[in-house]
Amino acid sequence: MPASPFPPDATLADVGEFAFIAALDEVFEQGEQVLVGPGDDAAVLRVRTGHVVVSTDLMVEGRHFRRDWAGAADVGARAAAQNLSDVNAMGGTAHSLTIGLAAPADLPASWALDFARGFAEECAKVGASVVGGDMARSETLVIAVTVLGACTVAPVLRSGAEPGDVVALAGRQGWAAGGLAVLGRGFRSPRALVEAYRRPEPPYGAGRVAADAGATAMIDVSDGLLADARHVAVASGVSIDVRRDAFEVAEPLHAVGSALGADPIQFILGGGDDHPLLACFPSAGDVPEGWQVIGSVGPADPRTGPGVTVDGGEYEGPTGWTHF
Amino acid sequence: MPASPFPPDATLADVGEFAFIAALDEVFEQGEQVLVGPGDDAAVLRVRTGHVVVSTDLMVEGRHFRRDWAGAADVGARAAAQNLSDVNAMGGTAHSLTIGLAAPADLPASWALDFARGFAEECAKVGASVVGGDMARSETLVIAVTVLGACTVAPVLRSGAEPGDVVALAGRQGWAAGGLAVLGRGFRSPRALVEAYRRPEPPYGAGRVAADAGATAMIDVSDGLLADARHVAVASGVSIDVRRDAFEVAEPLHAVGSALGADPIQFILGGGDDHPLLACFPSAGDVPEGWQVIGSVGPADPRTGPGVTVDGGEYEGPTGWTHF
Repeated sequence: MPASPFPPDATLADVGEFAFIAALDEVFEQGEQVLVGPGDDAAVLRVRTGHVVVSTDLMVEGRHFRRDWAGAADVGARAAAQNLSDVNAMGGTAHSLTIGLAAPADLPASWALDFARGFAEECAKVGASVVGGDMARSETLVIAVTVLGACTVAPVLRSGAEPGDVVALAGRQGWAAGGLAVLGRGFRSPRALVEAYRRPEPPYGAGRVAADAGATAMIDVSDGLLADARHVAVASGVSIDVRRDAFEVAEPLHAVGSALGADPIQFILGGGDDHPLLACFPSAGDVPEGWQVIGSVGPADPRTGPGVTVDGGEYEGPTGWTHF
Repeated sequence: MPASPFPPDATLADVGEFAFIAALDEVFEQGEQVLVGPGDDAAVLRVRTGHVVVSTDLMVEGRHFRRDWAGAADVGARAAAQNLSDVNAMGGTAHSLTIGLAAPADLPASWALDFARGFAEECAKVGASVVGGDMARSETLVIAVTVLGACTVAPVLRSGAEPGDVVALAGRQGWAAGGLAVLGRGFRSPRALVEAYRRPEPPYGAGRVAADAGATAMIDVSDGLLADARHVAVASGVSIDVRRDAFEVAEPLHAVGSALGADPIQFILGGGDDHPLLACFPSAGDVPEGWQVIGSVGPADPRTGPGVTVDGGEYEGPTGWTHF
């Protein structure tokens, strides 16, 4: 990271909103779609596709991140990643984002700047620009991101899965949940899992590949693999069965499972911080490279309705995250 | 307001995110631009104009609003208004919005629902839809809104004012600041001012009229009239002089000024919660109906640079709002 232009101990209140925002000029490069960038009442973006994909996500300190568990740049990268991933899950690519930063007056200005730098780094992975935002003083640190993007083919919704489809996953799954479990118990290793939690690596581009390959339904895994599979099942009016043996449990997950006395498969089935994509395809032959079959779609259970099973039966472990 | 579908004492935590969001279905009507509405990973909007105008604003409880000073529907309407006004200030019209609601677990579900209803009411004034959002638990109540819109002619920036232009205002100014001053001292009247604070009435459409009339620069007054005039002056590299006698001080502002021992002009020159528009035009003859000339543009002062004066001299009163 480059040096901070602010004194080492300076807070946001010391620096002031306008000086802080001025320092962002060199952090946020503007793409060719940006007709009017940050600094006016609104940004103006060129849209050549005839549509825009838009999504908003919140991150709250103490609930979605902790400053002692991840550096500012990591938090910034994660805030960007979870939004870029939402566009990925529609089969599209993000081009522009806005950031709302509600922050305590004593937040170090260098933390906020490193946050912005990490955010910009993640956006650069897909060529997206930060085109605007807002700052406000708040006791609780809250980050609100809105992402705009575009699809090249029709967007892939949650609601298109059909009985007979196969279910596939793109991207690493369970590593971030393992890292979170480790951090929650005061450990810092295995390093690979902690890093996976701090800097998820969503499979950018895999959504577009899936859309091109004829995916019938798709979702970003952010609440938890089974919880998000359930969102697809309910939206599509189907049942989804996930097979445990479809997942190779990586060595560090085995290590954490042993250390914590937990079945490591629960990080995979319940975790939601890696932001892989889950999609359905008409047949195994349609599943593109980079995607791995993990289950199948059947008709909704006539008694219990749409839902998710594991190896044909009910799953007893945690399936994901509750927001309230 | 229609009745709440939730038990009277239910909190957001009692109701749960998914049930709360389900109740929003009938609050947020979707416009014809909405190809994919709320409920998927992202919304998808049709864009016929080849561009999108986008802006994000935050509102934090205790800083931008108080639940004991305004009802939930008022807070919702104001959250929408300040974002719709940003598009107005570009000379455009808003079509779509997203809402991030970071809220305490014990926030009454009925408050959150009335907030959404007030928000939807305000959006309906310009025909805009709420197309998505996010909820999260937070100690501090933070509202993050992103607005998308379009212009029919080139957007009007802050940076186009030229010496010789006239400065004009559209919309009520100073009433909300008067209302805020009253509430801050524990009073509830004059009612007209308190209501102006609770429910600003931005001059929707006036931005488009100004753009069509050839406005050279425009801004939404949200930080304070002189503070925002200064943003235009600095962006344009000019000086702006505002004339006190251009403003007719309305009777309730006189009343509050007398009661509080303040010159009522300070509500007009320093207030920022009414969301009128300030714009510059090449000549008085270009100023369209609904706009009132309040000053003039000159070259930047060679010694002090771009800035704002009142009646040709420095203004000693408060000029606006500091975010940090």
